Amino acid sequence: MNINGKHHHAIWLNIQNPFVVDVIDQRVLPHKIEIVSIKTTDEVVYAIKEMVVRGAPLIGVTAAYGMYLGCVEAKDKLDAKTYLNEVAQKLNATRPTAVNLAWAISEMLMVINKTDDAEEKIKIALKRAEEIKQEDIDICYHIGQHGLKLIQEIAKNKKGKTVNILTHCNAGWLATVDWGTATSAIYQANQAGIKVHVWVDETRPRNQGANLTAFELNQQGVPHTLINDNTGGHLMQHGMVDLVIVGSDRTTRNGDVANKIGTYLKALAAYDNNVPFYVALPSSTLDFTMVDGIKNIPIETRDENEVKYIQGLENGEIKSVLICPETTPAMNYGFDVTPARLVTGLITERGVCDASEEGIRKWFPEKF
Amino acid sequence: MNINGKHHHAIWLNIQNPFVVDVIDQRVLPHKIEIVSIKTTDEVVYAIKEMVVRGAPLIGVTAAYGMYLGCVEAKDKLDAKTYLNEVAQKLNATRPTAVNLAWAISEMLMVINKTDDAEEKIKIALKRAEEIKQEDIDICYHIGQHGLKLIQEIAKNKKGKTVNILTHCNAGWLATVDWGTATSAIYQANQAGIKVHVWVDETRPRNQGANLTAFELNQQGVPHTLINDNTGGHLMQHGMVDLVIVGSDRTTRNGDVANKIGTYLKALAAYDNNVPFYVALPSSTLDFTMVDGIKNIPIETRDENEVKYIQGLENGEIKSVLICPETTPAMNYGFDVTPARLVTGLITERGVCDASEEGIRKWFPEKF
Repeated sequence: MNINGKHHHAIWLNIQNPFVVDVIDQRVLPHKIEIVSIKTTDEVVYAIKEMVVRGAPLIGVTAAYGMYLGCVEAKDKLDAKTYLNEVAQKLNATRPTAVNLAWAISEMLMVINKTDDAEEKIKIALKRAEEIKQEDIDICYHIGQHGLKLIQEIAKNKKGKTVNILTHCNAGWLATVDWGTATSAIYQANQAGIKVHVWVDETRPRNQGANLTAFELNQQGVPHTLINDNTGGHLMQHGMVDLVIVGSDRTTRNGDVANKIGTYLKALAAYDNNVPFYVALPSSTLDFTMVDGIKNIPIETRDENEVKYIQGLENGEIKSVLICPETTPAMNYGFDVTPARLVTGLITERGVCDASEEGIRKWFPEKF
Repeated sequence: MNINGKHHHAIWLNIQNPFVVDVIDQRVLPHKIEIVSIKTTDEVVYAIKEMVVRGAPLIGVTAAYGMYLGCVEAKDKLDAKTYLNEVAQKLNATRPTAVNLAWAISEMLMVINKTDDAEEKIKIALKRAEEIKQEDIDICYHIGQHGLKLIQEIAKNKKGKTVNILTHCNAGWLATVDWGTATSAIYQANQAGIKVHVWVDETRPRNQGANLTAFELNQQGVPHTLINDNTGGHLMQHGMVDLVIVGSDRTTRNGDVANKIGTYLKALAAYDNNVPFYVALPSSTLDFTMVDGIKNIPIETRDENEVKYIQGLENGEIKSVLICPETTPAMNYGFDVTPARLVTGLITERGVCDASEEGIRKWFPEKF
């Protein structure tokens, strides 16, 4: 999608140096637009861990490029195979909840292990990473196509009145390569001339809604309003939300959805007020090995200072302000799990389905 | 309760000048402890509107002192009665949701209108304001006594293991005069040697949880952990919350509870996970004239900049940082309404009751 009218991806191979991967530094958006050049696997680990890049699909694509850079580094190693397994392990350990990470790494290892030739490894690793990137773009486009039909249906029922969509966190193009997952349908609806308005949950602690989703929608010219995470229930009680669409970091084979902390609360409110609650996700986010997400999906805990301090712009500079007594302890769970019973449907690249084993099997029979 | 080991009230008559009312400036807590002296009714209006003082019970007590200052000002007016009605009106208009405001003003007008003598008005107005303040202290103490029994019961069932209590916003002593409503039982349980731990919702947009509740618990030495508003659902899914206690700004005669925005989401999560959800409130918060809170309770909308900017401490100074693109619009609803069906019980100064007309009638038959 666009930044200042110019089309951008969230990640790309540096145009001058094919051994460098460029990303937009998402830690300083929307206040600054900075490109970070990643040259080593350690820098990939840092970028994922410190959330220079974030969002389950983009983490996957970044890890794929990480494995490519691993092949470049392995060229000088005596035992390339061991080295690449170590790279895979350290990438895998960066974030525990998003399953796309493990998926992308295993995809990369599969092709890398096809040859022992170091140069050949590099070549096919780059090819596969670029493919994974392109697949992500295509997948997100198709998720948007399927989601668009849901929005069109609501617009029809509302006789052309504005369709109000609530989203949590950033499941936008910045969480993928382009289009986004939850936002793809919104962008396509907007492009198709359907009147949409987005309620943007700010999404504490890191405010990816306020920082990233509001930035994206602003840049794309989609009408939107920023709200605190506390507000969605009130809006739904008063008929001000027609549809909720969120992304996912991992969805179990029975349809339980791990997503940014707070998603579960919005799902409860949607259920209580008969508001459709959809989850948009590429199939790489489906964990076909797992059932009972609440019990089994590992939930990342992050630094308590993400809760105690909030980052923003003051006087042209990015600053962190303390919002509580300095000695107050805080707890920072990154995700929660929304049980399948609260999910109206999953929007995948192949189509919309129920959040259940039967529903998922309909579009992905080969995985069962 | 205590600040730096010294007992404090949230409001008091200035000890040197009986025509001045002192309050703690809650806008700069926990970073600075500043006393503001209020000398005029316009300053009372400002203090309530700008949230120098906040919390339904404290707003009521402050308005009572405001009516007293109105009597002082009325002394020099030709038409004291009209002037005092105007003061009542402008105080009433400061915050629409908390019903204690209207209650306290009407209590004050009742005694003020008993005499036409200006000096006598001042005398009885001060007496009634001081009474309302003392009543608030007593009421909060009794709310705590009744809430304490609920905590004792849970502690017994947990065989002495820590009782985890989640609270939203600040229904602490800073929202009242002393003790607080939701916190009163917590302080009394802590004093009684029961092991309690409090999950403190930060409570966006103004972060009264992070700023005030964390400050209070810190000062009283009650174990607590700050969390984002998004986190409560996850904690409840994992058995990490034994009890939710919140305050209220207005509760209808059928038990619908208006409280700080986001309360409804926690009530939904509590209901979904069989966690008891209690509302602690003085009877002055009960609106006996109203049913169907979702439809009828007026919900205050506040400045969008409270959402777009967050205040905190940086480098020893209180600063406001922008958390979204500058042109992003925001919406700021101050409260939401939790339907009675989600409320386990109301903790009043007379006892605990069901959140229903029958329940409330049990303790307050004279009001029906």
